[in-house]
Amino acid sequence: MPSTGTPGVSRGYIVPVGGAEKKTAEMPILKRFVKIAGGGDARIVVIPTASELEDTGDRYVDLFEGLYVEAARSLPITTREHAMEDECVAAIEDATAVFLTGGNQLRLSTILGGSPVAKAIRRRNADGMHVGGTSAGAAILPEHMIAGGRSGHTPRVDGVVMAPGLGLTNRLLIDQHFRQRDRLGRLLTAVSFNPFAVGVGLDEDTAIFLGPDGSFEVVGSGAVTVVDPTGLTYSSMDSAAPKEPVSLIGLQLHLLAEGARYDVETRQAFAPDPSAQ
Amino acid sequence: MPSTGTPGVSRGYIVPVGGAEKKTAEMPILKRFVKIAGGGDARIVVIPTASELEDTGDRYVDLFEGLYVEAARSLPITTREHAMEDECVAAIEDATAVFLTGGNQLRLSTILGGSPVAKAIRRRNADGMHVGGTSAGAAILPEHMIAGGRSGHTPRVDGVVMAPGLGLTNRLLIDQHFRQRDRLGRLLTAVSFNPFAVGVGLDEDTAIFLGPDGSFEVVGSGAVTVVDPTGLTYSSMDSAAPKEPVSLIGLQLHLLAEGARYDVETRQAFAPDPSAQ
Repeated sequence: MPSTGTPGVSRGYIVPVGGAEKKTAEMPILKRFVKIAGGGDARIVVIPTASELEDTGDRYVDLFEGLYVEAARSLPITTREHAMEDECVAAIEDATAVFLTGGNQLRLSTILGGSPVAKAIRRRNADGMHVGGTSAGAAILPEHMIAGGRSGHTPRVDGVVMAPGLGLTNRLLIDQHFRQRDRLGRLLTAVSFNPFAVGVGLDEDTAIFLGPDGSFEVVGSGAVTVVDPTGLTYSSMDSAAPKEPVSLIGLQLHLLAEGARYDVETRQAFAPDPSAQ
Repeated sequence: MPSTGTPGVSRGYIVPVGGAEKKTAEMPILKRFVKIAGGGDARIVVIPTASELEDTGDRYVDLFEGLYVEAARSLPITTREHAMEDECVAAIEDATAVFLTGGNQLRLSTILGGSPVAKAIRRRNADGMHVGGTSAGAAILPEHMIAGGRSGHTPRVDGVVMAPGLGLTNRLLIDQHFRQRDRLGRLLTAVSFNPFAVGVGLDEDTAIFLGPDGSFEVVGSGAVTVVDPTGLTYSSMDSAAPKEPVSLIGLQLHLLAEGARYDVETRQAFAPDPSAQ
């Protein structure tokens, strides 16, 4: 469950990105992230823990500095001990936004899960700090994380591997590299395991900006696939054998491109506003 | 549009199969097809026109004979001239069911389209003769045929190739080898081009038996994916560029395994009846 936060203070944005966001001159997702983080006053902490490449953190620091933030720094946390250090927690206390890079989301959850750093991110997000993440860094954001699974568009009892995530929201399940890695089936499986949350599949170079009002806007060059199980009247997910097909009756499906919005509270989708373009 | 038929006479079943239906001892789809065709009184005409293999027709004749039908014969029509012959039309007039094999659906439509054989199939189906088809033979059955397209689950303006089909129903769009060839995107594209029809994606070894009451039951080892655009409130299919993502808001999605039913008239899906198993 998300941290409760201080009464009267708006939650920060939650910004999962489907991976492979553009990092050249036109980089609408990272630019929008810097904008909500405060623009020239933004202090961004990059956490490259998901990645095993040494330069991942510095690469994002360079990108954010190139967008004229006040400060960007990397916290290359590679062990649970490191995630307990006061200096790391202090960096998050001071930040206006945290960005989690791609890599392996189980590495993220294994190293950060339950640590003072994770707790600081949760508490500060509830108090207005924005948290973004790409690829594995997107997958980790909700309470229930999609850690792996089968490709293909068919749901299967053994189609998804789930694990506890960072818990910044418990209204969404998030999958990423969605179209590129053909992941509708595992998102359908995850959603139907317990149809209380909305499934969100993010194509590469595509993000949602989930605001404190509980609605999100799509930014980027791909689409966001929303699976809403509110109307699910029948599911055989509990009785199908691993290789058997599954029946699911009454799912709502939306495909949302840039500018489209979705209200997670009311579960309504909205077309892009033409006047905003 | 479907042929009108004789007043008071029930239409025949329409039985599209997703391809690769089982042809060994347990072959639930072909057995059910023989049953509706009259069992021991069934007279089945096989049309192997979609296939360029010489033995396709004879293979199905052997299968149907092995299920103890009264008669099974193949009409290996390979030219439009052949499709005009009285003898072919007479065979269809005498049949209780016609079965169209797999292969290339554009070959089927090119050779049979508008021919006396096609007209006889349409007229006789309206008057109670059952028509089944597998793979290409399934694709050809509706008014609007999915002839080709891109794989993947994402709809795209250039995602599908359509052509006129046999026109036995204009309430469904049919795609086949659905899960195996990852065809949700092209079905979504086809449905959203003109959201009046319901999209039906058939996995291999999976069929729908669409009865004269306008509802169908799922038979076979895979699933049927139903895309119902009734509630589509927004589509950017008309304005998106070929490589741009498309927004589609308000689609209904059902996954139906064996025994599940769908009423095409009311667009309601029904779980399998446990007492029927």
